[in-house]
Amino acid sequence: MKTHATFYHAGCHVCIAAEQSLAQALDPSRFEVRIIHLGQTPSELAGAERAGVQSVPALVLNGQVFHINFGAALSALK
Amino acid sequence: MKTHATFYHAGCHVCIAAEQSLAQALDPSRFEVRIIHLGQTPSELAGAERAGVQSVPALVLNGQVFHINFGAALSALK
Repeated sequence: MKTHATFYHAGCHVCIAAEQSLAQALDPSRFEVRIIHLGQTPSELAGAERAGVQSVPALVLNGQVFHINFGAALSALK
Repeated sequence: MKTHATFYHAGCHVCIAAEQSLAQALDPSRFEVRIIHLGQTPSELAGAERAGVQSVPALVLNGQVFHINFGAALSALK
């Protein structure tokens, strides 16, 4: 069974770079990557917060949050 | 041909978590991941700096630096 990996972003330049390189670099045989644009789907903000996301871009993998560089604070997206 | 991905760390807790989850999650059919412990191999510090690494853990992928969470500043390792 594949592990879900969730990549949160907000369409910013830093986010896009991380998505195209890092999120796409994950092993597709082990991970099913969901890409969530928080600017376009603000209904996902609460879930991102619960997962511990503080800024985007961020990758949630195995319950751990990895904040990658810094594009925008989550609070700026509300 | 595989792309080289270089994961820099310094043995800290934040680094180890990122290494075990993120560095190991990369697609092994596309990436050859080098793991470099800058605390143990300070000779690699100059190369990390040239790649743009400012703190660890960091992943250099396709010439782009992704700073993942924050373990330690590179300057603290000199």
